[in-house]
Formats: sequence, structure tokens, C-alpha cells
Amino acid sequence: MEKKNNDSENINFSVRTDLAIEATELIISESEAKNKENQEENTENQDLDGIEISEENINENIKLTKVRITNKNGEKSTGKPIGNYITIESPSMKENDTFTHEEIIKVLSENIADLAKLKKMSLILVVGLGNRYVTPDALGPLVISKILVTRHITDSLPEEIDDAVRGVSAISPGVMGITGIETGEIIKGICESIHPDLIIAVDALAARKTERINSTIQMSDTGISPGSGVGNRRMALNKETLGIPVIAIGVPTVVDAATLINDTMDKVLNEMSLKAKKGGEFYKMLQTLDKEEKYNLIYEILTPCDGNMFVTPKEVDAVVKRLANIISNGINIALHPAISKEDINRYFN
Amino acid sequence: MEKKNNDSENINFSVRTDLAIEATELIISESEAKNKENQEENTENQDLDGIEISEENINENIKLTKVRITNKNGEKSTGKPIGNYITIESPSMKENDTFTHEEIIKVLSENIADLAKLKKMSLILVVGLGNRYVTPDALGPLVISKILVTRHITDSLPEEIDDAVRGVSAISPGVMGITGIETGEIIKGICESIHPDLIIAVDALAARKTERINSTIQMSDTGISPGSGVGNRRMALNKETLGIPVIAIGVPTVVDAATLINDTMDKVLNEMSLKAKKGGEFYKMLQTLDKEEKYNLIYEILTPCDGNMFVTPKEVDAVVKRLANIISNGINIALHPAISKEDINRYFN
Amino acid sequence: MEKKNNDSENINFSVRTDLAIEATELIISESEAKNKENQEENTENQDLDGIEISEENINENIKLTKVRITNKNGEKSTGKPIGNYITIESPSMKENDTFTHEEIIKVLSENIADLAKLKKMSLILVVGLGNRYVTPDALGPLVISKILVTRHITDSLPEEIDDAVRGVSAISPGVMGITGIETGEIIKGICESIHPDLIIAVDALAARKTERINSTIQMSDTGISPGSGVGNRRMALNKETLGIPVIAIGVPTVVDAATLINDTMDKVLNEMSLKAKKGGEFYKMLQTLDKEEKYNLIYEILTPCDGNMFVTPKEVDAVVKRLANIISNGINIALHPAISKEDINRYFN
Amino acid sequence: MEKKNNDSENINFSVRTDLAIEATELIISESEAKNKENQEENTENQDLDGIEISEENINENIKLTKVRITNKNGEKSTGKPIGNYITIESPSMKENDTFTHEEIIKVLSENIADLAKLKKMSLILVVGLGNRYVTPDALGPLVISKILVTRHITDSLPEEIDDAVRGVSAISPGVMGITGIETGEIIKGICESIHPDLIIAVDALAARKTERINSTIQMSDTGISPGSGVGNRRMALNKETLGIPVIAIGVPTVVDAATLINDTMDKVLNEMSLKAKKGGEFYKMLQTLDKEEKYNLIYEILTPCDGNMFVTPKEVDAVVKRLANIISNGINIALHPAISKEDINRYFN
Repeated sequence: MEKKNNDSENINFSVRTDLAIEATELIISESEAKNKENQEENTENQDLDGIEISEENINENIKLTKVRITNKNGEKSTGKPIGNYITIESPSMKENDTFTHEEIIKVLSENIADLAKLKKMSLILVVGLGNRYVTPDALGPLVISKILVTRHITDSLPEEIDDAVRGVSAISPGVMGITGIETGEIIKGICESIHPDLIIAVDALAARKTERINSTIQMSDTGISPGSGVGNRRMALNKETLGIPVIAIGVPTVVDAATLINDTMDKVLNEMSLKAKKGGEFYKMLQTLDKEEKYNLIYEILTPCDGNMFVTPKEVDAVVKRLANIISNGINIALHPAISKEDINRYFN
Repeated sequence: MEKKNNDSENINFSVRTDLAIEATELIISESEAKNKENQEENTENQDLDGIEISEENINENIKLTKVRITNKNGEKSTGKPIGNYITIESPSMKENDTFTHEEIIKVLSENIADLAKLKKMSLILVVGLGNRYVTPDALGPLVISKILVTRHITDSLPEEIDDAVRGVSAISPGVMGITGIETGEIIKGICESIHPDLIIAVDALAARKTERINSTIQMSDTGISPGSGVGNRRMALNKETLGIPVIAIGVPTVVDAATLINDTMDKVLNEMSLKAKKGGEFYKMLQTLDKEEKYNLIYEILTPCDGNMFVTPKEVDAVVKRLANIISNGINIALHPAISKEDINRYFN
Repeated sequence: MEKKNNDSENINFSVRTDLAIEATELIISESEAKNKENQEENTENQDLDGIEISEENINENIKLTKVRITNKNGEKSTGKPIGNYITIESPSMKENDTFTHEEIIKVLSENIADLAKLKKMSLILVVGLGNRYVTPDALGPLVISKILVTRHITDSLPEEIDDAVRGVSAISPGVMGITGIETGEIIKGICESIHPDLIIAVDALAARKTERINSTIQMSDTGISPGSGVGNRRMALNKETLGIPVIAIGVPTVVDAATLINDTMDKVLNEMSLKAKKGGEFYKMLQTLDKEEKYNLIYEILTPCDGNMFVTPKEVDAVVKRLANIISNGINIALHPAISKEDINRYFN
Repeated sequence: MEKKNNDSENINFSVRTDLAIEATELIISESEAKNKENQEENTENQDLDGIEISEENINENIKLTKVRITNKNGEKSTGKPIGNYITIESPSMKENDTFTHEEIIKVLSENIADLAKLKKMSLILVVGLGNRYVTPDALGPLVISKILVTRHITDSLPEEIDDAVRGVSAISPGVMGITGIETGEIIKGICESIHPDLIIAVDALAARKTERINSTIQMSDTGISPGSGVGNRRMALNKETLGIPVIAIGVPTVVDAATLINDTMDKVLNEMSLKAKKGGEFYKMLQTLDKEEKYNLIYEILTPCDGNMFVTPKEVDAVVKRLANIISNGINIALHPAISKEDINRYFN
């Protein structure tokens, strides 16, 4: 999973999510709260400087949101690097709903193609990050097992489909705890050996809201930092470190336990203060609690277990397989637009 | 996993754990709190009426606690039926520490033999409850795959070990969501077909404290209610329903998300009130919050996700396999005390 | 997998397959060989007494064959009990060809409904035979995990779909080596507890021809004998033993090593004799080899490994999942014809 | 699995095994046959030129054989490159016999240390070859998941064990069908990124004799050619291609179907000719069959299935896990001789 930005200095404290869409939501809600309190106007613009958002309902089941971080201000407030973040949200993703899955795959493949500027790319390396032995972290490795790889057969394909097929390779390097090697080093080595034009990295993410778990796909053109680790030695996978563009695709499969407790506690105290007769006063008192202090307290109470504890739905085993199917199909169709399903069955099985 | 006692009328509200040891801890701590407040003495006896506790440190790594619920008062206050509850606690359980595992297996097998009054039993059915497709719930099915079954070969065993071998059979019936049949009905049917003298039922449990997850084995002679379900139709597996004794063996592998949030919130507010200058007053105010109201609020906020959300450590896949190994070995040694490891390799592989 | 009929006295020696279609092929080819030699006519009728065969090409990809064993003669020559055997053959079954899979599911569900006379059945128990821990034997358990079970919710379903839903339950009892109980005993016990009107038993089978592996589904109304065991104690699952009709559905996933060697050796010697100048004489000499003697020799040479050795394709892990998907969908559609895919997503996920 | 030597020109036809021990057995038995026929003496020396063999019974359960190929003659006759081949044979390997496993681990770790000249090595890369999704080919990936990796923590280890710990990293690159990249290219890239001093490559092999399956560990210092493929494009992993020594460790988990049929057929015909009255003449005739012709015929008959068919024992799923445990422990102890089990539990879990 993506690295939490705990160790970064300039980061907005309360951003503890891998999703750009959640980071911006948070900024908007804080901005609104401030405005309400101060009775001011136009402050919103200031808080959202460097952040552009557009939303579209593809249909009643699928929502598409595009967040663009355009400058250092946006980077600082969201904790996300400058670039494009596209989010597909659909609760049907986690269900056994093949029909909606096909629609999601279509939206996904179109947006991958857009984001990756695929026309110029002839050799692509798909990287599946994460630990295959930890169910909610196994998304990346599972996707790799379903990618239609072609690099090794482009010479031997029949002429009629040869032009339609890009060179695609795929690897699931494993996590540092199992390999003893930073994922970045492994990928850098392989890049120097096979020289791809583009990397597509797939990973499981952490969300802030439980309702987003297994219901959200985020794509971005800003790369990714593998490892949900504490340490700060992780080498990011992006254009700076690898010299080629890196598209990241992720699905939040867990909520960090401390974050969930923190957020639920806020809601509970809020609800209670509203219900209580003496509510107003009580709530004000709670607001005097320092946010960071509260979060750190929760973190300490959960420690030493916290590093290892996550919150995930019971059916995560089945759902992660469904998600891997959606994402691998989305990638396959984006990378090989001219190959029909029949061709796949004929030449690649 | 065991059914939560949500639907039971007379149950102490705050008991939301499958472990008798946690239920009694809670009563003791509440009793102490009351005493402190009231400056009274001897109230402890009253709160603990019907509950007997004894502790023993087997060694620096392994702690053995025996809780006995002796009357209806104890049953009401703990939410656990009258009977014996033996708990082995050892953080080494979840680690790759073969040496301590062997010690735990020894303690486990001795206590199973005691609890089951095995001498009189000649045919035993081991039942693995839980869902093999949900990692933290797969403990029961995994144990079954390692039980040394003998019922089908007792006729054909060589004479020299024949007397040493009890008839053992084992089944993992699956969960109602997959079978469409209550587990109790399946087990009842099989009992009527093969007539065992004793059932040993293995299940994953829910604990209240994260530090107990995957570090605690509970045995009891009171049977078990399969299914962590909401409904109240679950048929218990016990002497009343099946006509034969039922030994339950379980390990907590998850903490219910709402329970974890509730408990952590209590601790956070407590810490904060201590730190704050105006602490005393603030804390008193928080104590006026109705416990049940607070819990229900948390539950609602997490809904609709709650039914499905659990908190579990990242490495649960590997740990559940270790636990299954410990428990299956404990059962195998308890049931076949006269078979050496060499016999097992010679006759049963 | 189904029991081999090694221990049966009256069985045609050379029948060593679970497929009725292969058993009849063998009889036909032997009958033809005899006729050629003897220049006789009309002997075919005699050899095929009690056997009726009809074939149909559903499309270029799917072939449907119906074999009917009508009397004791047919039973003796084929080694299959009197009854109906329907076989769907399609090489696409084992490939990732969703389109053809849907066609196969349709043919499958129609034939299950026919064979089972489903109209009269209101409670069905689907039984998944086989060992989930042995990949080519895991078909039955995998199917069970995908069966749409309804028995436990028929009370609580919304009225609009209530009538459309039959009561369906499902169980995967495990194999005798793991449970210590004969599968027949377990199923008998469950039947006495829940009283189904019909059993559908799914199992992995052994074929004689490698090209049939993972490409053939056999349905029959004659029940099934679980366990590819040596012993003769296995209790069959059929109307005699359980008192209700038993539909068997199976796919051959392995070829018995001794059988494969035997058949390949025949072909090799045949080819060689044709090529050799002195062919005729040589072949005649080989024909003097007693068939049974040769098979037993092969069996002995492979022993002690034979009992454990099987021949299976490399990709069996992926293919068995595809087959489980086809069969579970075929059963689900046959049993719940009035439920649409949308209903399934709405009420059962 | 290792590449079969089908494509090599100079290879002795009948050598169709990954085990040097089987290749030499074959040469010896052919040499003996020739001698018997020709009544000649001293020919054995000639056939075994370039091959040195020594055997040792470690105990009644474990046999150690060292084969040394010393010149081009030995290379040609065995089909194995010049170098050392050490074989541990023990039927207990595949059984649940922890005691013998520990003895095997000891022998294994000593021989790895010898072969690898470990003293000079400070950074080792362990490579797990094979396909984790094909059970009998999953040995390499399974071993990797149990290797004690240290490269990423050598900086942060406590001083008291720092000197005792070599830098170890591990990777399971996947097979070309899933990655689209030759395994050799991936490993070369990673080597250029992290610069190890030694590679230890673990792979599943193919044996000729069924009794060797899962009962034999072969170590060699000659490297390995990944992929059981037909093509001749595979890049070997050895000192020539990677610039550093490559130790290969493998266990045969399958027998090639065509090879098994070929060998069994030879035995059957031999037996039959002995039994037949007219035996001598018949056997002579069979000996005139060209060996290569016969094998190719078998291969053709099995095609198109052959490429995919293998012969393996039923319990391969459980056995491969046991083997992975033995090999990973053998490697861990060889690489970290000064770390005790207690250290491992303290610092690495």
C-alpha cells in the first residue's frame, strides 16, 4: 500500500488518506467550517488554491471525479504531488455485478489511455505492488496474474494482429519485508534491462471513509510510493526516479484503525453534543482539544498493535479478486485496443 | 465466530466479548470503580458472586487462567453460561516460535483432556466452525484439515496400536451463508448418523482487547453458538441441543470495530481529561454520557459497513495457520495419548 | 472422484473410466474390431444391447451426447448402472472464453432441469464431493462455494420473488481421509435432518482420453460413488441408499497414470507394427498379449506410486476454477429459473 | 522448472531428466548392457569418462550422492555442464516427519555452504523460479516467502548480531508466460541494481523415476536454465550470463508424461518377453525398435496435450509446502550460521 505521509514535514496534519478526492473533501469541509464560524466569504478560493475539481455521473451507479493539483499550494494542502487524479466510484465494484463491472472497465480503460498518452508508448511495464500473502494488500499481485503480456511473443504473432499489439510486460516484485530490497531498486533494475516507455503501477490503498473501501478506483499520473511503512527510506516510483512516466492505479481496501477511531470519535462527540441539553458548551470544550494531540493519543493507545492493525470488510478475500479482474481488464483493453476478445482467446490462452 | 450476545435480554450491556476472561475483567474493573467512588468495601464479593477465578504462570511466556461460572448470578453478570472456562495466554502464539508452541501444545492437550473427561469417551467428533474463505474466520476449517482421524481405520490398524487409538472423526460444515443450513442442524444430523460420545468444536472468536488477538486460547465445557450473526435463530451446539458434551476451543482473531472504537474513545477521553487543567470537571461531564447510548451511536455511524467491518492484524494469514497447527496438535495429543509421533508417521501419513 | 470399478466382478475388464460415453466408445470399437476380423455382420447389435446413444452438435463448439443404459446387459458391458448419461463436450470449457461458457451454462441448466424433473422438487441439497486440498479433486468444493443457497432465507424474502425461489442448500462434506467418516454417512445424516427432495452431487472424475480432460461435463440420474479408493466399503449416493433421487454432475480432471500408459502403449505398438516391414506378423504377436495381464503389469510397475500418481494438465489450477463457475451457474439457473441476474445482485449478495 | 534438453544437438538421446544422478545411472546401465552383450571388459571406464560418483548413507533414511562432471566427455554423455552435483535422497522428505526433516536441513545447509564457498560472499540473492499458480511448479516462490532477508536491515540491527548476519535478499520473478520477460533479463537487471556476490536459485525439476518425485534435493554449482519450455531462447542463469556464481537447488516434483510412458513401456515389454515362451525372439525384435523413434511416437500421440500434461502425486499441494520449508531452512542456516533460532524470533519476526 501507499506510504502514509506521516514523515513529511509540510503536510497538512489531518490528511491521512491515499485518495486525492478525500484530501480535497477534507479541505473543503474545513474551509466551510471556518467560513461558517468567521461569517466570512470568499475564503474558499484561498484554501482551494491549486486544486481543480470536476465531477460527472456516468450513470446512476458510477461517478467519475477528476482532481487536478496545479501548484505548490495545492500540493501542500492536499499532501498530493502536482498532477491529475481520476476517481471512479461505484458500490457495485465490490459486488458480483458483472454488468456494471463491464461499464466500469470501459470507463477505466478510457481514462487510463487518456492519462497515459498511450499513443506514444510502445513498451509498457505493469507493476503489481503489495504483499500477496496479506489479503487486502494482494490486489497488485493478483492484477499481474491477469495481465495480457505480449513482449515475449511480439515476434511470433500472426501478421494480422501484430500491429494491434503493444509490447506489454508485467511484474509483481514483492514487498521489502520478503525481498530485502526496496521495490524501487527492483523496478529500476528491470527498467534498465528492458527499457519500457511507461510504467503502470497497481497497488492497494488506504482510505479515510469506510464507505469508499473496495468501491473506488483512483488513477493518477504522479507515480506512487510503495510500502505503507513507517520509515522514510522508500524510493518513489515516478518520472524523477525512473526517468519514464508512471501511471498509478489503486483501490482502497483498508482504513487505518487510528484514523477510523479518530473520525468516528469526532462524529460521536458531535452527535452527543447536539443531543445533550448543555450541548453547545460541551462541544466547544471538545473543540479546544488539539487535533494532532488527539490523533497521537489514539495512535499511542493502539500501539504496539497499531502498526499491524487494519479495518477491512469480512468479505475482502472475494472482493479483492473481483477488483483485480476489473483493473486487469481495464488495463488490457487500454493497452491492446485493437485486439478483440476473440483474438485473445485464439492467440493468448 | 461465536454469536455476540446482542439479542439476549438479561445480559450486562458492556460485555461484548467471546472471552470469559474479559467478561470477568470488566466486572472487576467496574466493581473497583464503584468501590473507589463509594468508598465502600466488600462490594466486590457481591459483584463477583458466581464467578471463581484462578491464575497460574506456567512460565514467563505462558499464563493459564481458569474462570468458573457457578450460578445464575455469574451467568447474568458475565453473559457466559455456567461452566468452566480455561484460557491460555501467550504472545508467542502468533510468532514463529516453535519452542514455545510445543509448550503451549502440552498445556492445551492436558487441559482438553481434563475438561473433556476423555477417559469415558471412545468416539469423538471434532467440528471446525467458521468460513474458510474469510481469513480470520478460517481457524476452524484449517484445524480440521490437520486432525488425525481414525474412525474409518480402527478396524484395520495393527494390533499393537489398536487399543491406543480412540475413534476420531472431523468435519468442517461451512457457514450458513454458504450452506443454507444452520450449522446445528448439520451437526445434529451427523451425530444421529455416527453417534459420537463427545464433540470438540473449534472456532475463531472476537476479543475486546487488541492485545489478546491471536494470543489467547479459550477452552470451555459449555458448548458454543456458531455464527457471529445478527439474527437470533442460531442453534447452539451444547449438551441440551445435541445430547452429548460439547467442548469449545477458540482463539480471538478479530476485534469488533464498534467495540474497539468505543473502548479507545473511553481511554482517549480519560487521558485528555487527566492532561487538561480543567480535567476533573470535563471528565465528570463525559461520565454522564450514557454508555449504551454512546455505543449505539458508534454502531450507527459505522453502519451499514459495521456488520462487515473487522479489525485484525496485517499478518493474520500466516498467524491463523500457526494457531491451527497449535490447536490441531493439542487435540491430536489429547485424543491419542498413547500414539507416539513415530506411530503417526508410520501408520497415518 | 468416483470410485473405479476395479473390485466389481462382472465388469468388462477394459472399462476404466468414469464417463459412460467412453465406456460405450470402447464397446463399439471392440465390436467393430471383432466384426472386421470375423467378417461377420449384425454383431454390433448384440454388443450394444441395452445401450442407446444419440448425438447432437449444439454448435461448432459444443457437442451433446446422450447415452441411455436400458437393461442389465448394457449395465454389464459398460460398467454403468441403468439410467441416463448426458455429456456436454467443448474444448472451450477449459479456456478463458466467456462467450462459449455462457452457451455451455445454458445447455447445462436445461439438461439438469430435464434430468432432475425439477418441477416436483421444492428442497434441493447440492453436495460437492472431493478434496479441496488436491487441486484436480477440488471441483466439488469449489462449486459449493458458488451455489446460491436459499433454504435459510425463504421465510424472509420479499414476496415478489418468494414464489420464484426454491429452497436450496449446499454442503461440501470433505473426503474420508480428512473426516474419518464415509461421505455417504454424512449425507445420510444431513438428509435425515433437513429432508431434501433431491440431491445434486458434483465431483471430479477420471477419463480415459487426455483430450476429454477438463473439456467434458457428464450428468446422470444414477447417483455416484464417492472416493477413488481401493477399498470396497464406499457407500454409494443414490436412490437406494438415500431414498431420494440423486443427480450426478462431473468433469474428468485427471487420467489414471496406468490407464494412460496402457492406452498409449497400444497406440505406439500399433503405429510401429504398421511402419515396420514385417509389421503384420509383429502386430499379431502383440495381440496375443493378454489385455488384463498387460494392464496389471503396468499397474505393478507403477506401484507403490500408482495409487497416488495422476496425469493432469499444468494449468489445472486455473481451469478447475473456470469449470466450477460453469457448473455452479448451470445449477443456479436450473434451480432458480425465475430469478434474474438483477434479483441475485439485489437480494443475495 | 528446468529446461528440457530437447533442443540441444549433442545430447545423449535418452537423457530426459533434470537430475545428474539419473543421467549417470542411465549411462551406467547402458554401459552394463553393452558389456553383457559384447562380453567385453573395461568399457565402463570409457563410458564414464568425465564422470565421478561418490555415495554416502548419512543414516538409514538419508542418502548423499556427489556427481562430478569433470570434462567435455562427461558433459556430452550426461547432458549436464561441467561442475558439482550433490543429491540428497530421502523418502521422508515428502512425509510429515519433522525429525528427519531437521536432519535433512542440516545436511542441506552444510552442502550449500560448501558448494557456495560462502565465506567470501557478503551479499546473496536467493531467486525462486517457477510459477506460483501451478502447484508442482510453486516450490521456488514458496521458498522465497520463507527466506530470512536481511539486506534492508543490516544497518539497523543491534551490534551483538550485526557481524553474524550476511546481507540476504530474495525474489520470485514469475514465469515468462505471466511477465512477458525472460527470467534471465529480470535477474540481470536486479543484479545490476543491487550487485550481489552470489545467486542461489531454487526451482522445481522433472525426474525420470516416479520414486524420486518429492524425495530428492539436487544442489549444483553450474547454474540453471529456467523454463520447461520448448523454445531455445531461454537465457541461462550462470556465471557466464550474470558474472557471479549461481548455486542451483531443485526438487523433482513431476515426471514428464512421455518419459514415464516410454520407461514403463520398456519395462512392460521386458517383463512380457521374459514370461512368454517364445520370449527371447520377441524381445530381440523389440530391441530393434529405434529408441528415438519410439519416444517421438509417444510424444506425438500425447500431443497436443503433452506440452501441458504431467504426472504428479495426488498429495503434491501439501508436499510442496513441506519441501519449501526444508529448503528455506537449509538456506537460512547456511547463510546465517551465527544466528540462533532465538535471535530469529527476537529480531526478525
